[in-house]
Parts: sequence; structure tokens; C-alpha cells
Amino acid sequence: MYSDIETKRDGGVLDPERIGRIVQGYTDGKIPDYQMSAMLMAIFIRGMNTAELTAWTRAMINSGEVLCFSGQGPYLDKHSTGGVGDKVSLPLAPVLAELGIHVPMISGRGLGHTGGTLDKLESIPGFRTDLEVPVFKRIVDESGCCIIGQTASLAPADKKLYALRDVTATVASIPLIASSILSKKAAAGISGLLMDVKVGSGAFMRAFKDARKLAETLVALGGGLGLRVKALITDMNQVLGRTAGNALEVIETIEVLKGSGPADVVALVEEFAAQMAVLAQVAETVEEGREKARLTISSGAALARFGRMVEAQGGDAGIIDDSGRLPQAPLSRVFPSRRDGFLQKEDCARIGQAVVALGGGRRRLEDKVDPAVGLVMKARLGQRLSAGQPLAMIHYRNEETLPEVEEWLKSAFVIGDEMPDVPPLIHDVL
Amino acid sequence: MYSDIETKRDGGVLDPERIGRIVQGYTDGKIPDYQMSAMLMAIFIRGMNTAELTAWTRAMINSGEVLCFSGQGPYLDKHSTGGVGDKVSLPLAPVLAELGIHVPMISGRGLGHTGGTLDKLESIPGFRTDLEVPVFKRIVDESGCCIIGQTASLAPADKKLYALRDVTATVASIPLIASSILSKKAAAGISGLLMDVKVGSGAFMRAFKDARKLAETLVALGGGLGLRVKALITDMNQVLGRTAGNALEVIETIEVLKGSGPADVVALVEEFAAQMAVLAQVAETVEEGREKARLTISSGAALARFGRMVEAQGGDAGIIDDSGRLPQAPLSRVFPSRRDGFLQKEDCARIGQAVVALGGGRRRLEDKVDPAVGLVMKARLGQRLSAGQPLAMIHYRNEETLPEVEEWLKSAFVIGDEMPDVPPLIHDVL
Repeated sequence: MYSDIETKRDGGVLDPERIGRIVQGYTDGKIPDYQMSAMLMAIFIRGMNTAELTAWTRAMINSGEVLCFSGQGPYLDKHSTGGVGDKVSLPLAPVLAELGIHVPMISGRGLGHTGGTLDKLESIPGFRTDLEVPVFKRIVDESGCCIIGQTASLAPADKKLYALRDVTATVASIPLIASSILSKKAAAGISGLLMDVKVGSGAFMRAFKDARKLAETLVALGGGLGLRVKALITDMNQVLGRTAGNALEVIETIEVLKGSGPADVVALVEEFAAQMAVLAQVAETVEEGREKARLTISSGAALARFGRMVEAQGGDAGIIDDSGRLPQAPLSRVFPSRRDGFLQKEDCARIGQAVVALGGGRRRLEDKVDPAVGLVMKARLGQRLSAGQPLAMIHYRNEETLPEVEEWLKSAFVIGDEMPDVPPLIHDVL
Repeated sequence: MYSDIETKRDGGVLDPERIGRIVQGYTDGKIPDYQMSAMLMAIFIRGMNTAELTAWTRAMINSGEVLCFSGQGPYLDKHSTGGVGDKVSLPLAPVLAELGIHVPMISGRGLGHTGGTLDKLESIPGFRTDLEVPVFKRIVDESGCCIIGQTASLAPADKKLYALRDVTATVASIPLIASSILSKKAAAGISGLLMDVKVGSGAFMRAFKDARKLAETLVALGGGLGLRVKALITDMNQVLGRTAGNALEVIETIEVLKGSGPADVVALVEEFAAQMAVLAQVAETVEEGREKARLTISSGAALARFGRMVEAQGGDAGIIDDSGRLPQAPLSRVFPSRRDGFLQKEDCARIGQAVVALGGGRRRLEDKVDPAVGLVMKARLGQRLSAGQPLAMIHYRNEETLPEVEEWLKSAFVIGDEMPDVPPLIHDVL
């Protein structure tokens, strides 16, 4: 290990076989934390080339169980680097299932300003995301899609490495991020992945060049692992859709599947479904894929599929026709614009922090989440507003949370006299 | 700590007050190894500026006891970065004491190819280097010089940091080396230090630019700490003097003090003594210092002073007139040149490894050292040799050690037809 740390420290290239022994040795406890943290810092600063990164990720995959689906494929997943109001996975999974794509989706929880797919789904009464692997596999094959949380048996090296990175300032490294994402996805037995790399004020990557670099790294690493990866760089400079908050986002999901969803969420669901249809060879062109995806929605088939998934995972499918069955915040209040002008900018991370302050997100992984609270956004970037016109509706439970929530919101919106350039929804497709 | 690691990771500058808390927190066990190793790797790659390094070193000094001498000063020390055959400290200490400079010298043991002053002195029957601090201080004030090993009470942060650096490939960092050296020296209560930075095939620094960088860093750091540091960059491309091996080097020390030492050792003793005399303001010029130093040797005063130091430290001063009282290897054998030609190059590290293979050095810190074995060198760089002419005399105890010893020596000497350029003994004075 010592000479390997030296090699990476000095910007050299590690031998793939040695990398396998390093990752395995660390997972087994033979390599101590203090050596791995020196190695991680050297990797953070010096980087890894594709061959190194492939070997590193493969070793992470091989540190645990690798799922194998026995049914007719294809098995694909979609993963987002996280944002505010990003509920795309919820409507996308049943749309894909209707296109004949199996979706064994392993998702995460919200942390900091970003929300999590699991928290959103768990706002549905009875919905379980902690299913055992055999149950997960059965639901994927029977219902076409199933969304659960990370299991301890898949890529255990990632859990141990992530915990160490989290305390040694080695999280924000593109190769380490890419290996963390793809190791878990590849271990879940999929053959292809659509990566939604978010960029902007509410994303992990604020600069386009970083997002582009991560997207390129993910595509290249996917190639090395034999996993087909399509990456889209999409905008996170404003809340995606109209809602940020767990139950509120489930309601919006149902609106999307009923054909009345907000344009940006609908556009991403259709684009992702179309790209994945081509990846899975169930459509010849993206345009054909987009048409087929639209049909799954307009026919009501994707909505019905969503209901079957909810039921299969123990949830109350009655929410589809009666959103009153979802948790509802007892109180609401308008957050108004203080002046006339154009909505020029949103600091989306601050809006996410407002949701956390409401109790709808987590500061620490062990925090509990209130499924009912959240924000309904009332303005889009570039929109003209009058003083007093609502920017958002705050759905809250406790009066005491409001001062911090409003503090975050006050600093989140920039309203000015000039019409701003509004960023495109999709920045790039790799 | 997390944000401090981030700062250094990204090449930023750490706040001096934060540095104090980091070093103290690590010494106290409040900061775990895995965070400190990430920090050390970030420092290794990104470096530290003089203000950061001064704060880091000061915190190391303050992690333990700081000695305070109550007698008439000045109190100075000399430190070498280590080499093969470097016995200069042994004759230098009594020469300095004769010049009126007190020398509280805290030295190290040999490790790997480099020898250690303590091991050399301990070949003198009865000589003790593990004296308690009060005894050490008394001998310095009474005998003018005393040479002991590192004590646990001085700069304990260094011991803990060094152990971590040793297993995380963060040893060879110029700021970390400089802080390790100067923290221990400053804690010993001296007001000035002569640093002998070795460069060449037997030195830690093989390239002149690295040696120069370390020397500059030491001088600047000394300035920050209020410690006058003079640095000389001296040659380690051949064994210093004629001997490499513990008792053999004591014998050579006595020769130097008797006026019959080899030219290179004598030159360094005189030059160092002269520079330190100027530093301590007991001479106005280096030339005056050199003259005074020569006089301490030609008068026999330095030899007598050496005897008093040996006695004060429990050793048998009878070795001065009877080297037969020192341990002697039972066997010896010539190592000959295999061809005619000029001695063009010595790989001094390999010669040091030959001494280790004889049992005269350490592979690991816990190894015991055989004081009797070693090499007597028979040729200098640039010398013309005939095939069969001795390059060295091997003084050994066990036949079984010889194959490895000869293997090292065979690969250590380059003999060729061209007269080589011989490097100067002193490369630079800072």
C-alpha cells in the first residue's frame, strides 16, 4: 500500500491489479483508514485515468453481491446527481416499464438541500423501500419497476469509502463520485444507465465544466465496465416542476402521469424515456421513443403501472384518485415578491434549505423527515411579477419554523428590471 | 478540521491559529489518524508557506517540554540530514566546546543505509545516550557538550506525526521534514543551528535542487521561529572519511582529533566549527573561526574535551589511547576492483546497505546493531585503480553475511576509463 500511495501522490498511474487489492484490502479491514485517507487525498488531487477508475470501480462492485436478473431484459436504471424538486424518477419508472424496459431502481434519501426519491415515495401511506433483494427482483419482473434503497449487500466498499471521504474532505472528486455511483448501479445487475447530471445553483456541480467532466467520466467509466451509460446535463437553476417537498412531489408525479404535469418535468420524463428506449433498443430513434413515451401517458397506461408498483411495494394506490390520502401540512402561507420586476435568478440550494427548515429534508442522515411540508413554486425564471404577487406557497406545520424558512427564501430570489436569459432545460447530451 | 483539510486540498493557506489547534488536537488524540493523514497528503502535494510552516512547527514545539539552559550561552547544535560515514558530530562537539560554545546535541539512530551518531557513540564501552534531561543539562554546562537521544518529553507531536507519515507515504515532504527537524532542535533550548544538508547518492536528497530547497526552507523557518539557522549543502556522493561502521568511525574520530584524520572529515569539522563560531559571535569571520578550530585540534584540547564528554556519559575514555578497547570484528577481507580504471561513481546508499547487511545498521528501528563490523574505504572518487587493488576492506563477523555484502558492493562502484569530474565537498552555504 505504501508504494501505491507514493505512486499516486507523485501523479503516477496505479496498476489495475494493485487497485483491486487496495479496494478489497480496505473493505476487509486489512488496510487501515489512515492509509486509505492518504490515498483518497492523493486521488482527489492527482485524479485517476479511465483504466485506473475502471479497475477501482470494478473492485468496488466485486466487494459484495452482484444481482442477476433472470427475466427477459432489458434492465435499465436512471440516476440523478440530485437537485431541488427533482421527482423525475417517480413518473419515469412506470413510463419505462410500459415501454418494455425493466427498471430495478436503487435510490437515495435527501440530504442537505437536495431531496431524495425514497423520502418522496415513503410519503405514500404503507409504501416500503426497504424490501429484501428477492422481493425487489420479483416486483421488477412482475410489475416492471420497483424503487428501493441501497442494500448493505451491494458494493459494501462504497459505504465504507464514502464514510471515510465524508470526514476527510475527499467527497467532491469526480473519479470518486463516478465510481461511487456506477459501482452501486452495476452491482444492481443493469445493462444500461441514464445519468442525469444536474448543473446550477441547486446542484452539486454549479459550473458547467465540472458537470461536463463528470458526465464524460461516467460515460467513459461505463464503457470500461461494459455498462451502456447515456449522460444528460440538465438545468438546476430553478426548482424542477412546481413542488419541493415529499407528498407534494408525489401529487405532482400523479399530475404528470395524468397528462397535466408542469412542462419541465414532462419534458425530462419524455426525453429520458426516449433516450433510454434507444439505449435499450426498444425504439430506433429518440423521436420514436418520445412518441411512444407520450402514448404511455396519454393512454393512462403509465399511471396504472405506477399504481401497480405502489401496491406491490405495500403502498396505498388510492392516492392516485384521492390526494387527500397523502399527508397534508395543516397550515400554508404565501411568500410574496417584495417588488415589481422579472424573476432573474433563483438560488436553488437556498430553496432546498428552506424545505429542510420546514422539516421536509435532512441536515444529518439520521434526521426524520416530515412528508407533508414543502413549497409550491408560483413563478418561473424570466417571469414578470408585481410586488406582493406570490413567489411560492409555504406549506408548514409549525409557526416556529417560519422565520428561518423565510430567511432562506428572502435570499433565494433575485428580482430585477431586466428580463434575464433563462438557461435551457437540457444543456448537453453525451 | 474538515474545512481545514478542504482548504489545504485546494491549495489554500491555513490560518496560523487553526494550525495550532490541528497539531495540538492531533497530539491530544482529538483529531483521528485518518483525518491527519488526509491533511498530511494535502500538505505533501500542496506545500506550506513560511507563515504556515512556522505556526505548524511552533505548535509541534509547544506540544511538549521546552528545555531552558541557565548557564552562560551560547547554546548551539549541528544537525545532518544523514549519510554514510558521517561521523562529523563526534569530533565537532568537543571542538565547539573548546571555542566556548555549549553543545546540547540531540541525535538519532541509523536507519536504512544511513548511520546514526548514537549508534557510533554506543560502541564505546559504557557510553550512555539515554540520560535524563537534568543530567544532560548538567553535563552540557559542566563539560560543554553532551550527545543524547531524542527524549519523549521534547516535541511529542513529532513522534506521533512521524509514525503516521512513515505509513502514509508523506515522509519526503520538505516542509514536513523541516518542521520535524527544527521542532526537536528548538525544543532543546538552543539559539542557533548549523544544518548539514547532504546531497548525492548516499543522501536523502539526491538532487541538488531538492537539497537547496530544504536548506532554504530550514533557514526561513529558523527565522520565523527566532532560531538562527546556517545551512550548508555538502556532498554525499562518496563515503565521508575512510570508515562506515560504528566503532570504526569512533576510531576515525579520534584520528581527526589527533590531527591525522582524513581531509574531508577534517575540512567539514573546521568549516562547521568556523561557521558556528561566527553564528555564536565567538569569531568575527569564518577565517578566524577556522583558525581557532584548528588550534583546538593541534593543541590537543578538543581531544581532551572529547575524553571528558565520554567519561561524563559513562564511557571508557581509555579508548582514546587504546582503540583495542573498542569492539573489533574478528574477520576481514579485501573487496577488490575488478578492472583497471578510474573510480567514477559510488552509489553511497548501496555502500550503506552493505554495512546494514554486515549487521552494522538497521532495517527496522527495533533491530540491534553490531558495533564492530563495517567498511574501511580504500579509494576516493577520481582515483586510478588497477584490477585487484582494494576498493574497501570488509570487517565482518559472520561468513554468511558476505554474499549479500559483496552483492551490494559490486553494484556500488563504477570504474571506467575516463577521469570523472569529482563533486566539491561543499556545494553551497546559505
